[in-house]
Amino acid sequence: MNQRPLLSNADANLTHDVEVMDERGRLSTIAIPCERPLTVYVDKRELVTLMTLGGAPEMLTVGYLRNQRLVRSVEEIASVQVDWSVDSVAVITRNGIADVEARTAKKVVTTGCGQGSVFGGLMDEVDSIVLSADARLRQSVLYRIVDIIRTQQSIYKQAGSVHGCALFSADGGLLYFIEDVGRHNAVDAIAGKMWLDGIEGDDKIFYTTGRLTSEMVIKGAQMGIPFLLSRSGTTQMGHMVAERLDMSLIARCTGKHFLCLTGKHRLLYESGLMEERLRLV
Amino acid sequence: MNQRPLLSNADANLTHDVEVMDERGRLSTIAIPCERPLTVYVDKRELVTLMTLGGAPEMLTVGYLRNQRLVRSVEEIASVQVDWSVDSVAVITRNGIADVEARTAKKVVTTGCGQGSVFGGLMDEVDSIVLSADARLRQSVLYRIVDIIRTQQSIYKQAGSVHGCALFSADGGLLYFIEDVGRHNAVDAIAGKMWLDGIEGDDKIFYTTGRLTSEMVIKGAQMGIPFLLSRSGTTQMGHMVAERLDMSLIARCTGKHFLCLTGKHRLLYESGLMEERLRLV
Repeated sequence: MNQRPLLSNADANLTHDVEVMDERGRLSTIAIPCERPLTVYVDKRELVTLMTLGGAPEMLTVGYLRNQRLVRSVEEIASVQVDWSVDSVAVITRNGIADVEARTAKKVVTTGCGQGSVFGGLMDEVDSIVLSADARLRQSVLYRIVDIIRTQQSIYKQAGSVHGCALFSADGGLLYFIEDVGRHNAVDAIAGKMWLDGIEGDDKIFYTTGRLTSEMVIKGAQMGIPFLLSRSGTTQMGHMVAERLDMSLIARCTGKHFLCLTGKHRLLYESGLMEERLRLV
Repeated sequence: MNQRPLLSNADANLTHDVEVMDERGRLSTIAIPCERPLTVYVDKRELVTLMTLGGAPEMLTVGYLRNQRLVRSVEEIASVQVDWSVDSVAVITRNGIADVEARTAKKVVTTGCGQGSVFGGLMDEVDSIVLSADARLRQSVLYRIVDIIRTQQSIYKQAGSVHGCALFSADGGLLYFIEDVGRHNAVDAIAGKMWLDGIEGDDKIFYTTGRLTSEMVIKGAQMGIPFLLSRSGTTQMGHMVAERLDMSLIARCTGKHFLCLTGKHRLLYESGLMEERLRLV
């Protein structure tokens, strides 16, 4: 039986108005994204402080514990209570976390925007991950996803300076859209939501506005997702890890353009679309 | 007497070619930036693993130790030897680092691209920082800087997916330009170069292609730099810390446009330039 943890539903402002002066000395007011510390306590023990926008702190906390492999199933978590008055979240587990000292000791400072630190050993697990072999992505679904992202209401459009991540179903339906000051918080929050909703990654498509660095690829793989899309680019290690996992990395997605870097056989070209595209060129 | 540490001069490829398939199924080869681990050993003790482009590993290492406040002066460092065959750098200090265990125990996972983890206590130091009170930035110097960045040769132009940071003299002369997969590596490498060259931040201008988040502002302040420029935006905590320090945060610098967010009195408008601008509008 899936025992869902008891979650708070903490609310916080996501943008903040500031006065700016432009190149002609004119004053005006713009919105900038909020950025606040969230200190995670697990069974009353301080674990980490995350810097976050604050839009989905419960999901972020659950996803952080998941992606750091500190809890193995959502059932291990009894409650997640965020209290912004003290910028902290109290997690209570059902049976404690074994060896929490040792498991959080190794520090790897990674590339990504945001939650740049992954506790050691993540790469060790990569080789044990097997992504769904028959998952395919149709070109028309890819275009549908790019279009949904383009028209999505967002903090980015209001205030800039945040990254967005989204999860889509196999037919390109939007399941989740999360923004944060760090894209790693956004991906962790999606991992948390997936756990809480019992959603598997096996045929899903993950979209990020940020770069596809090694840790983004590793986190995608941990969630079992075979498709990673970005409007940005990739790095050598992101590419290498994706290739090893036979994951489809598709970068530079804008309009009808994209570059498929790895897992090319998973992408189903639709000749009608290609011909239409050729006519337009 | 300034005792400069013994530095290796390790060389590595900065881009890597991969085959991509576009929206019409056409194959081509593009360059992507390298991303490699660099494990830092201090006096034979493993400290951290940084994910880096690899362009300036010695500077990155020195700047990382500086910005984490693990060493208090460059004279404390006897040698920095990078060996890419084992993806590591061996730092030897003259007298050891006191309490290294305790000082690296607190984890804050920050917002920024790249070196997202700062060991605890950095904010504690912010209030002790006093930036040069009479440093001023002329509008024409700001435009000179934006133009130098625009025309700079870069890995970004070849391969995308990296952040650039630069340090300028008070008259807008380029002192350093560093790129990395994480912008925090880039800012740390500049901090390392400044130490090695005995350069103070007091009248300098720092430019980053990335966002001006709290940790970028804190690192700029630690280097004593009163001006932070970005072509991107800022976050609430970046804004708050800069305001507290009376630092000039100038975002959205592109062409002749910019938005000055804090420390507005440090910016010297030049009426000729403003009139010229008005004529162009």
